[in-house]
This record gives sequence, structure tokens and C-alpha cells, in this order.
Amino acid sequence: MAAGIRPAGSGGAYEPTDRTVPTRSRERAAYDRESVHSMLDEAYVCHLGFVRDGAPVVLPTLFARVEDRLYVHGSTGSRPLRMAGEPDPGLAVCLTVTHVDGLVLARSAFHHSINYRSVVVHGTAHQVTDPDEKRSALDALVDHVIPGRSRDSRPANAKELAATAVLRLDLNEVSAKVRTGDPDDEPEDLTLPYWTGVVPLVTQHGTPIPAPDLDASIPVPGYLATR
Amino acid sequence: MAAGIRPAGSGGAYEPTDRTVPTRSRERAAYDRESVHSMLDEAYVCHLGFVRDGAPVVLPTLFARVEDRLYVHGSTGSRPLRMAGEPDPGLAVCLTVTHVDGLVLARSAFHHSINYRSVVVHGTAHQVTDPDEKRSALDALVDHVIPGRSRDSRPANAKELAATAVLRLDLNEVSAKVRTGDPDDEPEDLTLPYWTGVVPLVTQHGTPIPAPDLDASIPVPGYLATR
Repeated sequence: MAAGIRPAGSGGAYEPTDRTVPTRSRERAAYDRESVHSMLDEAYVCHLGFVRDGAPVVLPTLFARVEDRLYVHGSTGSRPLRMAGEPDPGLAVCLTVTHVDGLVLARSAFHHSINYRSVVVHGTAHQVTDPDEKRSALDALVDHVIPGRSRDSRPANAKELAATAVLRLDLNEVSAKVRTGDPDDEPEDLTLPYWTGVVPLVTQHGTPIPAPDLDASIPVPGYLATR
Repeated sequence: MAAGIRPAGSGGAYEPTDRTVPTRSRERAAYDRESVHSMLDEAYVCHLGFVRDGAPVVLPTLFARVEDRLYVHGSTGSRPLRMAGEPDPGLAVCLTVTHVDGLVLARSAFHHSINYRSVVVHGTAHQVTDPDEKRSALDALVDHVIPGRSRDSRPANAKELAATAVLRLDLNEVSAKVRTGDPDDEPEDLTLPYWTGVVPLVTQHGTPIPAPDLDASIPVPGYLATR
């Protein structure tokens, strides 16, 4: 889809840049908001990359999307949060989310692969200082993990808010990459005697395990039962 | 476990460094080889971070472990592989693997969390130039996804080998971080009327899907049926 074209019923597309056009397998790249947002929303954690003392650091962390903004949070004492802190110069980051959907077994070792969906976001993260935005972001972080949960738990108090830093990363320089479907064997390999196909991977919720100190009269909430 | 102590029956521990001692939740850190290796071996993809033009880049990629070495591979034309290429100065990387094991629902929004296991490896990746090591690494990459598969597929030919670059990252500066168990609510929150506990997440193999052009007389191999 060409950048800037917004078909009816979708949110349009992110503009490709030098950093978001892959050097390889360009046919797997996608820039439309709908695909990017659904891949982001389905993931529980992202991998947040930043540079510290000239070297790369990649840490897994919870995140949430609100429209075209991503939020990550952490202790005010954690490294990336401190590095993006006041006075706020921002922190150059790369935030990546990956879903592994299947194992692709080709007849040749070379064409083994995985089916996956990934989103890579480049940009500068800034600390959220507005109290209302910070509260909304923290709600979004809880609801990202379990939709509806923020209304069914005790909101953060002043002390907890003060101990938590929230970073915002706007979705501007973004791309998705997707591989789906069957193995791509070479024509001359099609008669080789090896099984070939895809093994799907499925992640599911198990039965909720109540905390030992839970009052037994409190039932499993509907927002868990329906997932 | 103190660095350098090697209890019987384990592979010992990685030496903690400034970069591998977390600033937060130090009680969750682990350095023993056995834990680190099992978390690495269980993952299908890693997130590989490197610095390009001063900015961080984080890409998902297949990888494999052979003893205390990690291998990633890619086209000789891909960015990180080119950057670590000849003449080989090495490429500073951070390679991270994360398993999301459960969603942790506390009574307070603040104490919501996930149960996870992650491994973070810091180091310098180098291109593998020895042909035997390269072949072994490529076998390991296939067997990492499906143990036993490299012997049941066509090995890479000279053209494929030439088109593939392999990077090696030695496991020296490594740490794991693990959260398990119940939510950690504040004592004053224990009587709040919210459900609290853990929702386990389980990733499973679905039924293998044969490629449309597979000869129907070739059965699903045992190394798939047993997983």
C-alpha cells in the first residue's frame, strides 16, 4: 500500500523511511495502521532497545498502545527511565514486538523458516509529565494485559504514581513484517523424500489460578472467563 | 549463587558484571548456566539489538546455542551481518530472549505484572568464516527449531552456504531474570473485593499442516509427533 493513501475503513498507513524499508524480503513489509495496531495490541511484552555507553541494550517490558502512542513504564530508578528523565532530552529507542505463528519445515535446510508477525518502531521516547496522561497510560498498561481490568482493581495512589515513570513513544516511523504460508522449496527439491509443511504454534490462556489469600466468595471475573 | 562457584551437576555460573546486575528486582536475577541455557533453548526467536548510525535497532531472528556459543544467521546482504563482516571488527550486540509464562493480576493496578523468564546476553558478534563451524552452526539453527530435523532435510549446497552469513556470540556476559508465583499485594489491600491470581499462558504445537505439494506417502515424522 502506498504511503499516505487512506482507504475507507482503515486508519491509513505509516510513511516508509530508510529505516523501515527492509533490505531483505521487502514483499513481507507492511505499513498499514490496522495491521500494525493489531500486532501491537496482541503482544504482552515488547523488546525495548536503547544505547548505553555506546552499546546496545535490549530489555523485555510491558507496554500499551493508545491510538498512535505507545507507553512503557518502570521504576523511576530503572535505567531507560532515568536516561529519558528530566531535563528530558528524550531517549532514542527501537521497540519491537514479535509473534511466532508457526515453524516452517522445508525440504532443504536452507529454506527452513518461521511464520511470524513483527512490528518495529523507531523513535525518541519522552517521559510523561502530565498527571492525567500518566494516569491514562497506567490504566492502558493494565488493560493491555487484561482488557477491562483497570476498572476492577485499586487505582495507583500518590506514592505509587510518584514511584512510576512512564515513557511515551509516538508511532511515526513504524513497519510490520509478516511471513505466512507454506515452505518455499526449490523446484529441483520437490521430489526429495522429506516431510514438508508448517507446525502451527498457539498460545492460550490456562485456567486462572486464584491467589492463596483470595476470599473464596470472589468469583473469576467475566473478562477472564471469556478469553 | 556467587560467581565462579560450580556446584556438582551444573555447568557453573556466569560472572555478573555491571551490565548484568539489574538496577531493580535483583532477587530475580540468575546467572547459573543450567537456567540460562534452558531458557535460551526453549525460545524460537531472540531479539537482536545493535547500533546503527548511533541509534538502536532491535530485530527478531532465529538463533541457536552450541555449548557456550550462540549463532544467528541471515543473508549476507542483511544489515547486521554486513556490519559484522570482513574485515571483521565485530558488532556490539545485545541478544535477548523472553518467555511470558503468566499474567499476574494483583488487587492494586500498581502490582499487576507478568510471570516471565528472560535472558540478556551482551557481547561482540563476529562472522563465522571457518567452513566446518559454519555448517555446524547452520545444522544447529535447524535443530534448534525442530530437534533432529537437520538430518532429515537436504543440507545447504555451496551456493546456499555462500549466500548465508553466520554470526557467533560467545556467552560470557549473561544474565537471566525470572518472576514466578502469586501477586505481591500490599497488606492493606488484602481485603479489597477484587479477584487476584495468575492466568497461565501456554504455547503449544498445533497439528502439523502438510505442504500442498507433499507426496502423500510421506508420513509426519516422529520428531514432530512427539512434541
